[in-house]
Amino acid sequence: MEARITGRILQSPRGRKKEDFLSTWQQPPANEGPPPPPSPAAEERPPASHFPPVNVPSKQPLPPRVLWELALSSGLLGFSFTPAPHAACSPVRSPAVAGRIQAPAPAERMASSGLQTKKRDNHNGHFVQPTNPNVATMQEDVLYHFHLSTSTHDLPAMFGDVKFVCVGGSPTRMEAFTKYMAKELGLDHPGAEYPNICVGTDRYVMFKVGPVLSVSHGIGIPSTSVMLHELIKLLYHARCSDVTVIRIGTSGGIGLEPGSVVVTRQAVDASFKPVFEQMVLGKRVVHRTHLDERLAQELMQCGADLREFPTVLGNTMCTSDFYEGQGRLDGALCSYSEKDKQEYLEAAHAAGIRNIEMESSVLAAMCGACGLQVAVVCVTLLNRLEGDQVNSPHEVLVEYQERPQRLVGHFIKKRLAAAGNPRDL
Amino acid sequence: MEARITGRILQSPRGRKKEDFLSTWQQPPANEGPPPPPSPAAEERPPASHFPPVNVPSKQPLPPRVLWELALSSGLLGFSFTPAPHAACSPVRSPAVAGRIQAPAPAERMASSGLQTKKRDNHNGHFVQPTNPNVATMQEDVLYHFHLSTSTHDLPAMFGDVKFVCVGGSPTRMEAFTKYMAKELGLDHPGAEYPNICVGTDRYVMFKVGPVLSVSHGIGIPSTSVMLHELIKLLYHARCSDVTVIRIGTSGGIGLEPGSVVVTRQAVDASFKPVFEQMVLGKRVVHRTHLDERLAQELMQCGADLREFPTVLGNTMCTSDFYEGQGRLDGALCSYSEKDKQEYLEAAHAAGIRNIEMESSVLAAMCGACGLQVAVVCVTLLNRLEGDQVNSPHEVLVEYQERPQRLVGHFIKKRLAAAGNPRDL
Repeated sequence: MEARITGRILQSPRGRKKEDFLSTWQQPPANEGPPPPPSPAAEERPPASHFPPVNVPSKQPLPPRVLWELALSSGLLGFSFTPAPHAACSPVRSPAVAGRIQAPAPAERMASSGLQTKKRDNHNGHFVQPTNPNVATMQEDVLYHFHLSTSTHDLPAMFGDVKFVCVGGSPTRMEAFTKYMAKELGLDHPGAEYPNICVGTDRYVMFKVGPVLSVSHGIGIPSTSVMLHELIKLLYHARCSDVTVIRIGTSGGIGLEPGSVVVTRQAVDASFKPVFEQMVLGKRVVHRTHLDERLAQELMQCGADLREFPTVLGNTMCTSDFYEGQGRLDGALCSYSEKDKQEYLEAAHAAGIRNIEMESSVLAAMCGACGLQVAVVCVTLLNRLEGDQVNSPHEVLVEYQERPQRLVGHFIKKRLAAAGNPRDL
Repeated sequence: MEARITGRILQSPRGRKKEDFLSTWQQPPANEGPPPPPSPAAEERPPASHFPPVNVPSKQPLPPRVLWELALSSGLLGFSFTPAPHAACSPVRSPAVAGRIQAPAPAERMASSGLQTKKRDNHNGHFVQPTNPNVATMQEDVLYHFHLSTSTHDLPAMFGDVKFVCVGGSPTRMEAFTKYMAKELGLDHPGAEYPNICVGTDRYVMFKVGPVLSVSHGIGIPSTSVMLHELIKLLYHARCSDVTVIRIGTSGGIGLEPGSVVVTRQAVDASFKPVFEQMVLGKRVVHRTHLDERLAQELMQCGADLREFPTVLGNTMCTSDFYEGQGRLDGALCSYSEKDKQEYLEAAHAAGIRNIEMESSVLAAMCGACGLQVAVVCVTLLNRLEGDQVNSPHEVLVEYQERPQRLVGHFIKKRLAAAGNPRDL
């Protein structure tokens, strides 16, 4: 059967000038879908002292399960909780027949969802919104690399309650984070299992516990951009609102003690500029990389709450290669001297860059464009000013990788503790 | 323990001008390691009619096991066969202690290897050669993303007999290809297992059967470049010679019937140019993408031998995104119209491009620079002139993905059939 986009989709953008479409990258076109979320700067929050009683000081929180159940029973979270394993395993039909099914438009099916009705009553208005107007008119949307489809899976039932999406390169790490969060939220139980929702493919893994979705993105910008296109569409089809996306990753540090955790202030490219460059229809297009400053400050506070490891706010350089792209001298190919390398890394440090990884810029650009609060929290595995090889003992590297998980786990519990006021979730 | 490069390595490139190093990307510096391989054009082969008796017509080959044993017993392959499961599972020490071990220089250990001595007597002189002079002087080389190291694994014993490296994005597909090749080469047996050599990490998978190594590379150029840096160093440390690398992948076709297999003539970028562009120390560097023309013709002949599916020789466009980067209208973000997309795809077709994927250009540039014969063989899952979504039935897509494996399996058997003359392997 031939892959095809409906005529309606193909006609939708027809006649618009290219400039109109380039401009839609950063904001949805008028009169399509829910309104775009206000910028974080425009968002108003009561000061901490105005928090309702449910928001207790972070140092002495109520037990996680109590907080979670308080938030749910209050109805103020704007969604009802569907246990992850059940929801994750409830396809309407086998994905194998996705291509043969003519389903009603997702929007119609979602409009009839009680879950969605409740969300409409209670959400904060910050729906996840693709900037592509075609998505709203697709009869079926096959999320090919997730092995999910709007015609084979009830996405609102499976994902409608998602408020936090944590992403990372390693599938194993994202599964471990899900089990960790289940414990932290008091949602685990003896023999509990957290099945891979994307079990039909080996491109990415996806796990869910409560309001936390955990997804792997592989290595590099292209692998991450494919995942993000489908993740953003998934959250849109599921009618999710007020979603925060955080990358919990590994990186090479610059001038930091190995094991330090960097909360990213700005994601910059290899020229130290806060931009994400891509080729679109053979032309170079540059986008700003926007990370939520207040979210970064909240995460820094979580590091201060924990006092378990050094936590630093700094710029993160996003490259497209681990070896030459990051100035390493130990790759199969190397076209520069040690002196060239040292000068480059020292210039990066002078520009406020504290770590180097391979995904932050596309995450900031795409999530920022679609109304998602986004942050990057990476641990440094080595100090690049002192070496290139990652050869610390295995058990040391494993403990390092758990640090961003502990920091973000603490952040999620604090956000849930504040859920009595939905403006804060 | 801090990661560190030995002073010897750091001093090695010191004092050279940057231009010198840029020039070494395409050729190893003089007087370091074995000589660079001659260009395919300079290589001399006897015409088919001069093949020795062991090289029978491809339509009526001797049984694979007979050919394989003939080649081994003749000693003309230049290596002795070590069964993959045994070799693949023989680490000298646990990778967990890699960082604490001071091993002798790999070159010294390899020089004392009988396997290597035999290789020196029989190889064709086309050793795999990193263009980075530092690699030859490293006391230990940790291949971090493979979870292998020169001080914890006997790489010559594990990989010294590798002649064919097949790579693809999907870990499952690369495992399936290994099992398929075991059958095709007559090397499988009841209950045979092919363990993942990179079991200590979840970044990539690696399997080996006879002279065939199968490695996953994930999605996109960055993920593939990380794998290739470590693969090329692995083949160098193992003293492999006369190695052919073939990507067996999936792609979107342009003007082809879905299920067609494209053998790549030239890997081009999103502007239709045969180049691979990367950022090195913050500066844009452009490399030519070199694919072996004679190897592509051999693969086309294999498609003609099989007569099982359409096989086309054409240019392949390598992009850094699956959605906007390939002109799709169904991503979360879309900044152009259907008309813009159609004009772009039609211009690509006019430029000789027959399929679009995300890894070919970096594969061609890096392997070509390091003395590896390289080719790209991808099946098309859909015709992009007719649609964007990959929504054919699952079983149809699975059969499509087997086609490059069958073509390359036939090619490997033909190459082994010609192994009586080592110049042809």
